[in-house]
Parts: sequence; structure tokens; C-alpha cells
Amino acid sequence: MRDTVDFLLHHWLNVAALTERERFADHSAETFGQVLDTCEKIAREKFAPFNRLVDVEEPRFDGEKVILPQATQEAWDAYAESGMLSAAQDYDIGGMQLPYTVEAAANAFFSKASVSIGSGMLSVGNANLLMAHGTETQKRVFALNEFSGRFSGTMCLSEPQAGSSLSDVATRATPDGEGHEADPLGPRYRLKGNKMWISAGEHELTENIIHLVLAKIPGPDGKTIPGVKGISLFIVPKKLVDTDGQLTGERNDVALAGLNHKCGWRGTTNTLLNFGEGRFKPGGQAGAVGYLVGKPGQGLACMFHMMNEARIGVGMAATMLGMAGYEASLAYARQRPQGRPMGVGGKDAAAPQVPIIEHADVKRMLLAQKAYSEGALALALYCARLVDEQHTAGPEAADQAKWLLEVLTPIAKSWPSEWCLEANSLAIQVHGGYGYTRDFPVEQYWRDNRLNMIHEGTHGIQGLDLLGRKVVMDGGKGLTLLATTINRTIEQAGQVPGLAEHGAALAAALQKLGAATKAAWSTGVPEEALANATAYLQAFGHVVLAWVWLDVALSVHQHEAQLPEAFAQGKRQACRYFYAYELPRIDAWLGVVARREATCREMQDAWF
Amino acid sequence: MRDTVDFLLHHWLNVAALTERERFADHSAETFGQVLDTCEKIAREKFAPFNRLVDVEEPRFDGEKVILPQATQEAWDAYAESGMLSAAQDYDIGGMQLPYTVEAAANAFFSKASVSIGSGMLSVGNANLLMAHGTETQKRVFALNEFSGRFSGTMCLSEPQAGSSLSDVATRATPDGEGHEADPLGPRYRLKGNKMWISAGEHELTENIIHLVLAKIPGPDGKTIPGVKGISLFIVPKKLVDTDGQLTGERNDVALAGLNHKCGWRGTTNTLLNFGEGRFKPGGQAGAVGYLVGKPGQGLACMFHMMNEARIGVGMAATMLGMAGYEASLAYARQRPQGRPMGVGGKDAAAPQVPIIEHADVKRMLLAQKAYSEGALALALYCARLVDEQHTAGPEAADQAKWLLEVLTPIAKSWPSEWCLEANSLAIQVHGGYGYTRDFPVEQYWRDNRLNMIHEGTHGIQGLDLLGRKVVMDGGKGLTLLATTINRTIEQAGQVPGLAEHGAALAAALQKLGAATKAAWSTGVPEEALANATAYLQAFGHVVLAWVWLDVALSVHQHEAQLPEAFAQGKRQACRYFYAYELPRIDAWLGVVARREATCREMQDAWF
Repeated sequence: MRDTVDFLLHHWLNVAALTERERFADHSAETFGQVLDTCEKIAREKFAPFNRLVDVEEPRFDGEKVILPQATQEAWDAYAESGMLSAAQDYDIGGMQLPYTVEAAANAFFSKASVSIGSGMLSVGNANLLMAHGTETQKRVFALNEFSGRFSGTMCLSEPQAGSSLSDVATRATPDGEGHEADPLGPRYRLKGNKMWISAGEHELTENIIHLVLAKIPGPDGKTIPGVKGISLFIVPKKLVDTDGQLTGERNDVALAGLNHKCGWRGTTNTLLNFGEGRFKPGGQAGAVGYLVGKPGQGLACMFHMMNEARIGVGMAATMLGMAGYEASLAYARQRPQGRPMGVGGKDAAAPQVPIIEHADVKRMLLAQKAYSEGALALALYCARLVDEQHTAGPEAADQAKWLLEVLTPIAKSWPSEWCLEANSLAIQVHGGYGYTRDFPVEQYWRDNRLNMIHEGTHGIQGLDLLGRKVVMDGGKGLTLLATTINRTIEQAGQVPGLAEHGAALAAALQKLGAATKAAWSTGVPEEALANATAYLQAFGHVVLAWVWLDVALSVHQHEAQLPEAFAQGKRQACRYFYAYELPRIDAWLGVVARREATCREMQDAWF
Repeated sequence: MRDTVDFLLHHWLNVAALTERERFADHSAETFGQVLDTCEKIAREKFAPFNRLVDVEEPRFDGEKVILPQATQEAWDAYAESGMLSAAQDYDIGGMQLPYTVEAAANAFFSKASVSIGSGMLSVGNANLLMAHGTETQKRVFALNEFSGRFSGTMCLSEPQAGSSLSDVATRATPDGEGHEADPLGPRYRLKGNKMWISAGEHELTENIIHLVLAKIPGPDGKTIPGVKGISLFIVPKKLVDTDGQLTGERNDVALAGLNHKCGWRGTTNTLLNFGEGRFKPGGQAGAVGYLVGKPGQGLACMFHMMNEARIGVGMAATMLGMAGYEASLAYARQRPQGRPMGVGGKDAAAPQVPIIEHADVKRMLLAQKAYSEGALALALYCARLVDEQHTAGPEAADQAKWLLEVLTPIAKSWPSEWCLEANSLAIQVHGGYGYTRDFPVEQYWRDNRLNMIHEGTHGIQGLDLLGRKVVMDGGKGLTLLATTINRTIEQAGQVPGLAEHGAALAAALQKLGAATKAAWSTGVPEEALANATAYLQAFGHVVLAWVWLDVALSVHQHEAQLPEAFAQGKRQACRYFYAYELPRIDAWLGVVARREATCREMQDAWF
């Protein structure tokens, strides 16, 4: 994988160009390479060897503490020591001022080594949010201690009765007595409610856990505002701290109500937390102490600030599971003898068996995995590059990046979740019966990966977001911009023998996608347009990935002289695979979208 | 599900017509119904409650015995007592002379309740094989004791180095001394070798375990014949028996070498067995005692005798896992409130949440599961009905049934394995985060189901069997016959408003399938034709299922007056779903088949 990462970063995405910007001026291809080297090494030594262990030794609660394997502590410590938690931060707060693109690439190695040991993403997301919306004190006390690895962070959005429907959040925050507004850590409230699916919600890996919690502040009538407008955001530390970030010795009223026992991804604790149930009484009073972040009612807006990066992160995790399965099944296929080549004159039963990689159907399963995982990796890094553009390019380029990100993020999240899961299933299939046993790693990758279509917005939610919001907002500006970007690739591919044909297929696909988008909305009725939003998401994803592969193939063509022949051929063949086997799938998906197929929405409960 | 089973059996497949045949003359719709009632009850009481238990308490070896939960013993006993092990056998050996169609339907309840507790299928398959190929003594001593549940049976085909490639079986059988040919239990040999993936290979559920083992008999030069022609079949009991079927007290030289620890399907022990390693020495001599079944070199032919039923059985197991997930997620979707209906004027945030079954995308996921699992059930029962035709109809009808079975069996095995697995994934998705936890049953269904694309011939093997053998043998007789059958449905559908359109779509699909079959073989080069055999299998499967759904919908139309309105509407809507969302997928698959797409077979090892 490293050669692919290097090629994508340096040749395809030209990250060196970023070093011309002031923020990244101290960096070079060499420093980027060193970061990747370090992360690859830590991932190999501290994460990969323990991936099965954390699956077997699930987190358990002994009545007081949540117990994790010692290896998890060591992996966390090594990660924190590497400085990756603050990789993207300013030098003056101890960061590396690394581009997000390089940070994302470096973190990919951890996801591949053990997706569920790695829980840095949540802490970084949490701290980044505070850097954007917190007060100076909140940044210093909470965010900085997360960047150093002393504290860790969570995101507390869901509740048992409010998952996809965040507007139904029922956790309440009431002002914590006289002078609550003047607390140096932020306006002080008492929270009461339950939060579900909280990853890393309870553990002993760090000195403290900083929960970012969505809750509603009741009005003078005791009622909350229905919908998402009533949601505010609070910092709720597990243990109370002073303004120097030192623990006061008092436990906040946040209690573990239960551990979720999952199908996979077992290295990360996943919890139901009770806020303000009264088990602990800070200041002698029930209610979890929380400090308001930003303004009341702006909670979801603050959260959404981090959503793009969180969703790209989920997509990257799915991608790396796909990659891990691809590498494992490739290695297996190269050494497992079974069967003989198909001959025009039949098989010679006395000939020795050949490695299964020689069979066309096994090649198909490997090529599909390569196309899915390397394609998804390219997309994730492309999106990461857009994040850098958004943050550090000139105003026009930054704006364009923002719009492209709006439409691409649902794909960067959903596409790998679906297709790298399929890749993992193919990795099992390549292994045959062995792949179904826990003696090989692939069944765990498949189980781990199943989560990604669910968390950070389900597949269905991503589809609604894409077709219901992203492609129509501001007159379809994002979609138009994407089409322009894709057409640029098509134009260039037109000049290259072997790619021109793919370019023509992509142009046709893009045209169909545009037509289906229009047709879906032609009646202006959301129920009709959105009844097939998931099919739209799938088709959109395949068009985007076809574009990514063509653009990658184009880059291979342009840099051919500097690339090993086999490497270049592999990329070309994966591109060819995608156009032969994958892109043609879009017709079935777009068909239902374009005719606003009513079968599903007309189905009645009683008929099931 | 019971209403669907009853409808399929009685209205669609007209099982009552079977009672006009002498063999089934004592039966009636009522006796069939009683068998289903009994099995449904035992499955509900003795299997379903323990499905999670057998997942958690995996089989373990204590050094002497393999330990299974007590519930497994009780389930086995209840199943044996029900008489289902000999359901299809003659009255004079204690059987019920039940049609296979009814037997298959009745067994479906056990698969749905707990696919991995149920291990009756293997014993019945084993005993059936002996009834077809064994001597009278072998039938009496081994088969009859399996039908009674006193003994159980296994199928020992695979070896660590010989999975899909059975021609590489290395287990050897040598004549067991003077007079070995005259042993009343059959020509006696000593076997030496290892057998892998042996389900129910070691346990204490029954008094004895009867292994049916493929092995090669070396010639006078000590060499074995390469390829499948050298394979013979042997009965190898775990404990030696006399000609009355009584245990002699002597242990045969069959030893457990290891338990396989699987991703799912954990209620069934899966083993690596060593034959003749010398741990036990029957008659003071190393080597597992085995009795030849049939003639030397005919081993695989004997095994293949049972292959259709075994593969239909695997397809049915996959189907029932799909059905179980469908039922679980349907129940969940009906009671889980989340979100609000989409309105032209936006959502009313203050309105109460609605059950998620009201959302179009959830309906899509449920409808897909319904279409997959009920469609697969219909196909499995249709194939079972063909088995009955083959065994009890007149010569011409029996011959037709045989040919239809040849082409349909790869589909009956592979299609549910692929799409009811997808159904299970959708069942998880409907549950959201809850579905990913082990507090709900759906993640286990999904894990259990992943096995079905692997055992009894992988997906790849089914594709090669279909495109490489079944549709071309005897001038394409099987495919022609299937086309005739499908065209009959299309013709009838042409007369029915609402179905005629589907009929036209099916006719077009059938035409494309035929054209692709021809195009694949147009160069006569197997490597070219078969490089896309899996895509062919997928397309073929979807065409078959489209036909099944149309035929079912036609039957609903014909029996409308006797069916509840909601039931009829549900079947019609599932049919409509299949034509809107599923059938259009075939173009992408058939495209690569028809142009003999070379991308995969031209891929080189070094390019990965």
C-alpha cells in the first residue's frame, strides 16, 4: 500500500505544492515521508500484532473500571507520543502544522493495522471543534490536553430514542445556580439524560475523558424547542478540572450505564452513558456539570463543523479494512495451491496444482478488492486535499473546495463503507473455508467493517443528504463544479490511447447522472424524489469512483517514466476493471431514480 | 412465514397432486400440515431459544470429548424423536413416505430457528447415499441406525490440500489383509489421511458417528490414479460395529486433530480429522477400518448422487437465515419510532416520531429482504418438487425434472447464499446501531450466512458448473427446457393486467441470457467463456428469480379469492420490487459474459 499512498500524494495530488504555502513552508516531501515512515512503523509494531487480541478480549466492566488489554494502553501511548494527535495544529501549541492530507494518509496505517484500537480520531475531532468554537480557556484547558494525549474525547450525540433523528435529543441542560454564566470554563449548566453509542465513553487510557454533549436548554416555561434549533453543545468532563486543567479530585455525574457488545470493532469501548443520574454529586448536587460551547441553540452547527472530517475518517477506516483484506487475500492467493489451469484440451490431472492466483475468478476477486480499496483511498485523500484547500488556499479555490467537499463527503463516507465491506467478503471468499475461520484475519475485517454503513450517519441518511440537500443547494453549485472537474479529466483522457474510451463511458455516465438528478426532482415532491435516494447515492458513488480511477490512470500515464512498470500496469488494469465491471451497474440504480419508482414508498405495512 | 409456505406448497406447487401417486397415497394436505405444525413447534421450543447460546458456547475439546451445550443434545433428541430423520423413507423401514417437498419445507423451520444446531441434513444425506449405493447389510447396519437417530453421519470429502480440487484427495485406502473382500460389512480397507472441514465430525450426541470418506486405492505399483477417477468411497465408523449394528467396544482409528473456530455457524462442530494416525489400533493395527461402498473408482459418482439435495439444502439454510433476519427487522421496524414523515412543506418537528417502517428507504430494505428470502424459498421448494418428480413421476416427466434440476441446482445453492446474506446485511441496517450489537439476533444471522457461499462448492465452482457444464451438456437440453418453462409463465402473464409488463421484461432478459450464453462459447475456448462464469451465475440467478416471482404472482392472481388481500398485495409488491430494482442488474453482468471480457484473466500476478 505504501507505494500507492506515495504515488497518490506526490504524483496525483502534488502535496509538494502545499509546501509553497506559508503554513506548510517548513515541510517538504521528505518530512511528509518521515511522518508516514513513523506511523507505518508504530502501526506495524504497536497496533497490528494486537488486532485479534482486542477482538477476543472485549472491554469489560469490573464494577469500577472498564478493563482493556494492556496492548491498547501501549498503542495509545505510542500514538500520543508520536505527536499525531496534534499533527495539524500550530507550532505554538506544540503541533506539526502538517497538511490534513498527510495527516489522513499517516492515520490510514493505524486503521489498516487495527481499526478498533485506534481511537485518536475522536479526540482530535473533539479538540478541533473546541479550537473552532471554544473560548480561549476552553481551548487551553480541554483541547490542548487532548492534543497532548493527557485527556481523550468523545462525541455524545445519539440517545436511545434519538439516533438518526437528532432533533429528538432529550438530554436537558439547566443553569447551574447563581453566577453560572461567569464560570471561567464557560457558562455552567447541569445536564441530565442518556447518551447511546458513545465510543471511548469510558476507559482508563487517559487521565480524563472530555465529553462533548448535545443537550437542550429548557425555556422559562420548562419546555424545550422542538427540532434541531433547540440543541446546544456542552463540555462535560468525566472528572472536574480547574482552570489550569488540573483534576480537582471531584468526579462529575457521568456514569457508565452499559457496554455495548458488538459484532466487531471490539477494541473500542462503546457505551451507554447516564448524565446526571445522581451516582456522583459534584458540589454535593446531582446533575452532570457541563460548560456551554458557543451560543445556545448552535450545538448542531458546531458539531457539523467537524462532520466532513469525521465522515472522511469513517470512509478512510472502511477503506483501510478493505485494503487489509486485499493484502491478506493477495498473499494467500499467491501461496495457496489448488486446482490447475483451464486448458483447451482439458486439465492434466497429474500436473502439480497451481497457486489460486492463476485462476480468472480469483483474479477477479482480487482485482475488485484492489479497485475498491485503492479507489476509495484515492477518493479519501482527494477529499483530504480539498480540506487543505478549503483551509489554506486563496478565497476562490477555497470556496470551490468547500463546494466539492459538500457533494463528495457523502460519497467518501458511504462508498467505502459499502464496497470495501464487499471487498472484505471477497477476501473471505478467496480464502475459502479458511477465510471463515478465526485463524485468518479476514473474517474480523469483514465484521469490523460492517459498522461503517451505520455510524456517522447511516447509508440512508447519506443518500438523503446528497440528493435532498447537497446536489440541489445553491442551484446545484456543488454538482456543477464536480461535473466541471470530471469533464476536465474526460477531456485530458481523450488524448490518451486506452483511456479515451473510458472517458467516453464516463461522459455518458455523468450525463445520465445529471438527467436522473433532474428527473428525480422534476415534480418537486420530496417524497417522490427521495424515495430512491440510496440508489442515487450508489450510482453517484460509482460515477465518482470511475472518475477517480480515470484520473489516477491519467496521472500514471503522465508520470509513467518515474513508475515501475508493474505498478503502472496494476493501476491501469484496476481502472479497466472498474469500467468493465462496475460502472455499468449505474443503469439499474439510476433507472429507479429517474422514473421516481414508487414501489417502495407505496408499500404498505400490512402487506409485509 | 408459515402462510407463505402453505401458499407455495398448496397453491403454487400443488403438493396435493402428489398424493395421487401410490407412494404418497396415504397422505393428504392435512397430514402434510401436521408435519409442518410439529416441526414448527419443535423448532420454536427446542431450537430457537438456544440459537444465541450455541453461538456463545462454541464446541470445545476437553482432551477426550467434544463438549456441546446440553440444549444441543435436547434439540437433536427432539428432532430424532419427531421421525424427521426418516421422513422420506419407506414405511417398512420406519419412514413416513413423505414427499421431499414437504420434508424440505418442514426442515426449513429448523434452519430458521437455529441453522447451526440442526445437523440432521448430513446424517440423512449420508444414509440416503447408502440406501442408493450400499449393500443390504450396509443399509441395515449403518443407514437405518442413522434414520433412527442412534448414529449420525458425516461427509468427508475435503482435505487440507484438496478443497475445491477434489481430484487431489490424498487419503489412501489399502486392503485390510487376507479375506478383506469377504467382510460382511463390505470389502474392508485401512485408511490413512486427513479430512478437513468435517461438520459434526466429533461429538457425543449419538452412539456412533458414521463417516463417509473419499479415498484413493493405490494400484499394485503403489501409485494412485490422478484425477477424480481414482476416488473410491468408504464407510468409516468412529466406533466399530458388528453386523447387527452393535458396538464391538473397539474404537476405530479416527482421531480429532482440531476444531475449526468459525466466524459463525458455531453450533455445529467443524473438525479436522486424522484417519489412521495410529492413536487407536483396531485389531491391534494402525489404520482406520473402512468398508467400500459401491465399486472402486466410483466414489465421486456416488457422492454426486446426493449433491443436488445437499446443495438445495444449503440454499434453503441460506434462505431461512434471510427469512429470520427479515422477520426480526420487520418486527423492529414496526415498533421503533424514529424521525417523521417527509412532507412537501417540511417536517413538523413537534409531531411525534413515527415507526421507521413508514420511511421509504426502510420499506425498500424490508421489501428487498422479502423478495430475496421468499423468492429463494419458492425456488428451493420448486427444486424440491422437481426431486419428487424425478423420483415418482412418469419417465418423461421424471427426465424433464432431472434436466431442470441440473441447471437450477447451482442457482438454488448460490443465489440464496449471496442474496439472503445481503438480506441479513439489510436486516442489520434496519436496526441501525442496535443491529450491530449481539443483543439483537441479526448480526449472528449475517455471520452464520457467510458460510453458505463457501461450503458445498464455492460460488466460483457453481459458476463453472453452470456455464461450463450444465447449460452446454447434451446440446443445452437443460437450458432449453428451462426456457420453455419460463416462456410458459410469460405467456400466461401476458393475459393478466399488471403482470404482462413483467412478462415482457422477463422475455427480454431471457433472450439476453441466451445470447450471452452463446456469445460466451462462440470461440469455443473455455478460458474465454469461463473467465466470467461468476457474473453469468449471478445474471442467471436473477433471471430465474424474476421468473419465480412472476410465476408466484400469477398463482396469487389465480387463487386470489382464497387469499387474504394483504397477503396477495405483499406478493405482488415483492414481484414488482424485483422487476423494478433487481432484474435490471443483469445487464452489467451479462455485458462482461457476452463480450468475453478479458480484464481479469489478463491480469498478471506482479501487477497486483
